Amino acid sequence: MHGQNFIAGELSAQGKTTLLASKPGTGEVLPGSFTEASAAELDRACRAAAAAFPVTRALSGKDKAAYLRAIADEILALGDTLIQRACAESALPEARITGERGRTIGQLKLFADLVEEGSWVDARIDPAMPERLPLPRPDIRSMKRALGPVAVFGASNFPLAFSTAGGDTASAFAAGCPVVVKAHPFHPGTAELVAQAIDAAVKKCGLPAGTFSMLHGAGAGVGQALVVHPAIKAVGFTGSLGAGRAIYLACAQRPEPIPVFAELGANNPQFILPGALATRSAALAAGLAGSITMGAGQFCTNPGMTVLVDDAAGRAFAAQLGEELAKLAPGTAVACPIASSYEKGLAAKLAAGEVELIAKSKVAPVRAESAMIPALIATSAKNYLAKPELAHEVFGPVSLIVWVKSTADFVAFASQLEGQLTAAVHGEATELADAAKLLAVLEEKAGRVIVNQFPTGVEVCHAIFHGGPFPASTAASTTSVGSGAIERFTRPVCYQNLPQSLLPAELRDDNPLGLMRLVNGQRTR
Amino acid sequence: MHGQNFIAGELSAQGKTTLLASKPGTGEVLPGSFTEASAAELDRACRAAAAAFPVTRALSGKDKAAYLRAIADEILALGDTLIQRACAESALPEARITGERGRTIGQLKLFADLVEEGSWVDARIDPAMPERLPLPRPDIRSMKRALGPVAVFGASNFPLAFSTAGGDTASAFAAGCPVVVKAHPFHPGTAELVAQAIDAAVKKCGLPAGTFSMLHGAGAGVGQALVVHPAIKAVGFTGSLGAGRAIYLACAQRPEPIPVFAELGANNPQFILPGALATRSAALAAGLAGSITMGAGQFCTNPGMTVLVDDAAGRAFAAQLGEELAKLAPGTAVACPIASSYEKGLAAKLAAGEVELIAKSKVAPVRAESAMIPALIATSAKNYLAKPELAHEVFGPVSLIVWVKSTADFVAFASQLEGQLTAAVHGEATELADAAKLLAVLEEKAGRVIVNQFPTGVEVCHAIFHGGPFPASTAASTTSVGSGAIERFTRPVCYQNLPQSLLPAELRDDNPLGLMRLVNGQRTR
Repeated sequence: MHGQNFIAGELSAQGKTTLLASKPGTGEVLPGSFTEASAAELDRACRAAAAAFPVTRALSGKDKAAYLRAIADEILALGDTLIQRACAESALPEARITGERGRTIGQLKLFADLVEEGSWVDARIDPAMPERLPLPRPDIRSMKRALGPVAVFGASNFPLAFSTAGGDTASAFAAGCPVVVKAHPFHPGTAELVAQAIDAAVKKCGLPAGTFSMLHGAGAGVGQALVVHPAIKAVGFTGSLGAGRAIYLACAQRPEPIPVFAELGANNPQFILPGALATRSAALAAGLAGSITMGAGQFCTNPGMTVLVDDAAGRAFAAQLGEELAKLAPGTAVACPIASSYEKGLAAKLAAGEVELIAKSKVAPVRAESAMIPALIATSAKNYLAKPELAHEVFGPVSLIVWVKSTADFVAFASQLEGQLTAAVHGEATELADAAKLLAVLEEKAGRVIVNQFPTGVEVCHAIFHGGPFPASTAASTTSVGSGAIERFTRPVCYQNLPQSLLPAELRDDNPLGLMRLVNGQRTR
Repeated sequence: MHGQNFIAGELSAQGKTTLLASKPGTGEVLPGSFTEASAAELDRACRAAAAAFPVTRALSGKDKAAYLRAIADEILALGDTLIQRACAESALPEARITGERGRTIGQLKLFADLVEEGSWVDARIDPAMPERLPLPRPDIRSMKRALGPVAVFGASNFPLAFSTAGGDTASAFAAGCPVVVKAHPFHPGTAELVAQAIDAAVKKCGLPAGTFSMLHGAGAGVGQALVVHPAIKAVGFTGSLGAGRAIYLACAQRPEPIPVFAELGANNPQFILPGALATRSAALAAGLAGSITMGAGQFCTNPGMTVLVDDAAGRAFAAQLGEELAKLAPGTAVACPIASSYEKGLAAKLAAGEVELIAKSKVAPVRAESAMIPALIATSAKNYLAKPELAHEVFGPVSLIVWVKSTADFVAFASQLEGQLTAAVHGEATELADAAKLLAVLEEKAGRVIVNQFPTGVEVCHAIFHGGPFPASTAASTTSVGSGAIERFTRPVCYQNLPQSLLPAELRDDNPLGLMRLVNGQRTR
């Protein structure tokens, strides 16, 4: 581990502050001393990105695909070194990290396929009508093009799939944008290894040096300076409400405001209908406990709220779910500050009044400072709605049961919810038929509505949407997962009356790329 | 003219302040005393919009099309009353207002056709793969759905096409959003008439009363209160940089931030290459003078900057353009404050130093207080880049010639420009072939690049894009003109594992609406 920043193809460590990485499960300090980027290094990275942009925005889909696949290859070539470092820094088990590497590579390849095929640009052509009356129609064409240099923040909970070469970086590169990554200080060694892989791919593909940079930084300083740099034209962020909101406001107040695609938090409510409880409460309790504790509860789609009718069946289910959670071992946080935030958040909920602790894991943790102890707490819908602090996400393996008086109250309660990434309804066929109203309300609140499945495990595909109304996201109409994520880092450009020779290939009459296009309002190849 | 607000289907005038309309060309006060909406009326309108939303978001494409066409019919049925009032309030000539009514109706019908066909929702289906290893793929589907109640601000310069039933309102209705309009105080009578037409259409189509409201307000008060109302989920605005920026920041600072689609201003540079000057300078001068003075210069696409090489041909063209402008009669502003802003803006440019007045119309104005006097001013590229105040848009019939030393300087100057709605290059075939670099730079700066045509007159079609990097727009990836404008008022909703019977028709296996959809990543019906 050299601990340096990657500034447009060169290693650099001119800053005065360093940070260390440690094993969350033991406290053991890991090799490497990572130097925070200086203001001059940050400026160099951003200027180089701006200088690279005219080249990257004009890359063909084929060239971008080759680059994305080269990154995937280089990441794989890091082999066990990457897996071991990511496991050590995050305390996530090897199977999870190996799976996450697979997802990261899968995302890069999904975008490679998308840009190689090319129709994602939404090419539109309305040819000239010189004879039209009262005025001729000019020749008008448009397509999506890259937005400009993008700042991407590594996420604490996904050292690979949402970090240096994660979904935001992959989709920004796919769009044709240079990327400046701010590495997450919880896994700087993983960031260094992945940056090395991207850097190698940049060089192998002969791209401009400014296509990629990666900066280290522990506090808010580097990140805040990055997002207000005039060269940066968009931000990708996954993290806490406080940090995301600060970045969002800083970007709104820039002389040139820029979009911030920040995914900030959600409680992902589970509405469990009585029929489902009657027929399969044991399976539901086991499944929900598994979803709550998956990855030590460190998923943005963690089911942090369970809405139940306060009757005998509901109470029995709560007890059953509590028993499931009580027998599960505490997970280890990706870093100790996550565990202490979790503990504080849980304590704050319990201190809010009229919140009951139903169960807590009885298994001894590996290490108290990093323990994520599964828990189940409960309150009434009335109390929940009266106390805004109860709606704040607690990031960790806890679900808050919210008791409603009867199934008739599900809709009224749902209609009071804040924005969510996901919302799920569990029910039997007959009662689901009556749940259309509930689903309709949940659609207004969430980016993804789910029936009879749990929200953790986000499928990476074309139809997925991962986002939702604030605070789930600061840009509710955009997704951070799936092929649709490329759209965040683009804007349409319209061409009026250009000669064929000056048009991009995507918009020429002869359609040399064979794209699906909208011609006179009709989709056609 | 009753002068009341339309609050969810009812007329209401509880406010204490009134405003009047007058003929800008004479000062004559027009019939009607318009009562500003009170805080309670505003709240009622917004709450009614929220209450209407569950119904409007679920309307079929057919029902929305019928509603949009009913609005168009009702506007036409207002007949000459509307034309005469709009002409009187705006001083725009009858031919222009009649044309603008045609465009307004055309926009409503374009969106009606779009939602009736239905494929705009971008339905995506990735069916379940229960056998996939290592994990089964769940059934994932998504489509665009309405965002929620939208606040729309009437624009001063388009009393019909960008006001009460203008593009923003039409696209929001098409998406399935209720709309609360803040009428522009320069044409409150036109707003009342059009609101009456929309209100009649709401009633005829049996839609919820909260589908539409319209509020009067002269200062920033009503507008600012409207955009921070918790029920409002998006804002459409066309107007000044100052007002738009204030709205943008207010919305970013809300507890729940919301998107603001504000189109704020641009200089729409015209790069005129030497070959074009050599072969057709007279036609270019006449055409450019016509574009500069069209609508008394009150177009967001007004060519406010002309970039020329400082040589004999360039100087001759400037003189020729100046002569064309000098012989044109001053237009009349849509309201006196526009004319005084224009005069101040022009004076500020001339006072900035090293700015030359080349020509000013010598024709006497109809009325000094509302005169928009065509003018041509000039400065060097060096001076322009040194003084940020020279980049501020002056809304009116003036173009600033920017002198560059040679054609080689076009690219360097273009690369320093702020965001623009449009940028045009005028040249002969041979020199255009060498202008690819200039066009590439202009693409980075503008929403629409144009060759050998003028930017005024925005075609309403599928491929048009009207927007651009800030300050052209606060949302550079969205258009306010053309069928793509519907996307601003939507967000995708994803459905996981829903039974067929609970899915929207757009996403069912049997594709009952016959939509073009993305199934497993392939476009298909």
